Amino acid sequence: MTTSPLPPSLVAPGGTVGILGGGQLGRMLTLAAAELGLKTHIYTPDSKSPAGQVANSVTQAGFEDEAALLQFAQSVDIVTYEFENIPLEVTSYLQNHVAILPDPQALAIAQDRLAEKTFLQQNGIATAPFAEVSADHSIEQAIEHIGCPAVLKTRRLGYDGKGQRVIRESKEAPGAWKSLAKAPALLEAFIDFGCEISVIAARGQDGAIACYDIAENIHANHILHQTFVPARVSNTIAQAALKTATDIIRKLNYVGVMGIEMFANLPGPDAPHLLMVNEIAPRVHNSGHWTSDACPVSQFEQHMRAICGWPLGSTTRTHNAVMTNLLGEEWRRWQTYAQTPNTSLHLYGKQDTRPGRKMGHVTQLLPLVE
Amino acid sequence: MTTSPLPPSLVAPGGTVGILGGGQLGRMLTLAAAELGLKTHIYTPDSKSPAGQVANSVTQAGFEDEAALLQFAQSVDIVTYEFENIPLEVTSYLQNHVAILPDPQALAIAQDRLAEKTFLQQNGIATAPFAEVSADHSIEQAIEHIGCPAVLKTRRLGYDGKGQRVIRESKEAPGAWKSLAKAPALLEAFIDFGCEISVIAARGQDGAIACYDIAENIHANHILHQTFVPARVSNTIAQAALKTATDIIRKLNYVGVMGIEMFANLPGPDAPHLLMVNEIAPRVHNSGHWTSDACPVSQFEQHMRAICGWPLGSTTRTHNAVMTNLLGEEWRRWQTYAQTPNTSLHLYGKQDTRPGRKMGHVTQLLPLVE
Repeated sequence: MTTSPLPPSLVAPGGTVGILGGGQLGRMLTLAAAELGLKTHIYTPDSKSPAGQVANSVTQAGFEDEAALLQFAQSVDIVTYEFENIPLEVTSYLQNHVAILPDPQALAIAQDRLAEKTFLQQNGIATAPFAEVSADHSIEQAIEHIGCPAVLKTRRLGYDGKGQRVIRESKEAPGAWKSLAKAPALLEAFIDFGCEISVIAARGQDGAIACYDIAENIHANHILHQTFVPARVSNTIAQAALKTATDIIRKLNYVGVMGIEMFANLPGPDAPHLLMVNEIAPRVHNSGHWTSDACPVSQFEQHMRAICGWPLGSTTRTHNAVMTNLLGEEWRRWQTYAQTPNTSLHLYGKQDTRPGRKMGHVTQLLPLVE
Repeated sequence: MTTSPLPPSLVAPGGTVGILGGGQLGRMLTLAAAELGLKTHIYTPDSKSPAGQVANSVTQAGFEDEAALLQFAQSVDIVTYEFENIPLEVTSYLQNHVAILPDPQALAIAQDRLAEKTFLQQNGIATAPFAEVSADHSIEQAIEHIGCPAVLKTRRLGYDGKGQRVIRESKEAPGAWKSLAKAPALLEAFIDFGCEISVIAARGQDGAIACYDIAENIHANHILHQTFVPARVSNTIAQAALKTATDIIRKLNYVGVMGIEMFANLPGPDAPHLLMVNEIAPRVHNSGHWTSDACPVSQFEQHMRAICGWPLGSTTRTHNAVMTNLLGEEWRRWQTYAQTPNTSLHLYGKQDTRPGRKMGHVTQLLPLVE
């Protein structure tokens, strides 16, 4: 028997938000919830999760454990998630017992690059040209269609540059796909962009939409290194990016905070107008961490407000800011960061330091100047 | 056998701070600690404490439970406290096993109005004239010495106006003392002050001192109603207040955040220069809650930095602010506060609403103007 998903309702102070996943995003959501008098219950397989340490309750169980999922669903007022690779069977099962926001259809789209790009294309939103690669859609056909250079990406489970191959010449294509174990993939035209920007957008249960200012991202080794705000793009591109984000979040009937990464160009006489959506993350996003220090309402509080049916908070920015991820051993320099003026230190309570692992971040605040 | 108290040392991220008491101050300390990657362990008799809900660990036990205290001491790297009425036997016992900051001598002073006023007087810091009232020091002698009007206050366990009687005429004095069950008391001259101000001061393990800007307090029914910053006092009084706070925190060799309430005068041609210390609180303080929203480093983070041996953070203020306590049923208007522009809502997760109980606070941010 299939029942309709439960509709969301108001979660008042004292209510409990269930969060699927226990990483640093769940931790920061939990801390924001606590300031609002909301409780959190973390569901994670991890016995020492960053979020579980500070939440009111933790269920430590695998996502295949139906009994644990049922008990979790029955002990919370609403469910949300802090990472996108949650099996859709899990959300379908939970939806029989409790409301989930954002609607898991956003997960379905974000988990699959083909579904994501198709959704964007069907809604008139620019992306890099793309072609499917699978047993039925050959890499040779895709290369013919897209040209070189191009980037081959697995449809699922890619993050921080994992599951990607750059193809410079067509003859490299078969080998590239083979090296990805011939997993279902997408070939995307290589975009010669000037910068990557992101929009952190929020939509409330009442349909109100609020976006933070456009931020610009710097990657190193395919991992986000820094985000700074404001982005260096022209006002025209900034306005177009906000409109794009608003279109996406409205078309999805989305409730919560969403991170949207886009390719753009820096201003300049020779720069063509470029704005393409690269990726959608149906959750709070690393490129929005600066909002914790430079805005009255952080992306984490905003997400809680949205999914709990509260009015959205102000997205006004009170400072310019530079957020830098502390990857791997870098967090051990915490004493230096702690004494750097105008710099907020955030550490995630992770026990094991591994190369490239996000252990914390710092945000440097600068005077508000455009 | 008496051993010397253990000296404090550096508590690095991943370390655990033990907090005696589980109220909203402990909760906000816990949330600040979590952002720094520090763990907290709350010791409280309360089974549903605001702080325990968000801390890494909780010991629910009475302060007379030596076995629980020992286990608590052995499971943390340093101990601090969030209220001042902790029995000194508890801190003496704990000090054999773990360092406590601020040094409990500050507790001894803050727990006893006579010790507090005497300490201030001996260090040349102005207070209201005072006289002891006890079996050996009659109320009549005290009135003769201090005059009327005066305020009779029990030496111990007074807060939010409890344990106080205003005496307008000398004949009321014996009855007033009787109504306080003839508890050891202090008679203070009634000060006709223009405003009450507070200084939130911090001193690090390294002896560095940092004060936030002077704030002004408005009480209603003897309970703090609002704190706004900047205070309306003259620059001369503001500077004198900062110097007084610095003197106190240095003389006590204090480590941590301290709240110091003072009586002062508003500027005006007829206003005499007035600055007297009213009360010292050896902990984070309600009149410093605005720092969470109007400063890069809140009083809660500052306290954690100080006691853990970290460098103190910046006390620069980025906004003007008005903090309003949500007492009793007032928090039920949370939806109104949540949609008020430039206003941050903080709720403490308390289950039972009682008249006058501090259930949360809101801080309204205003542009930075003197």
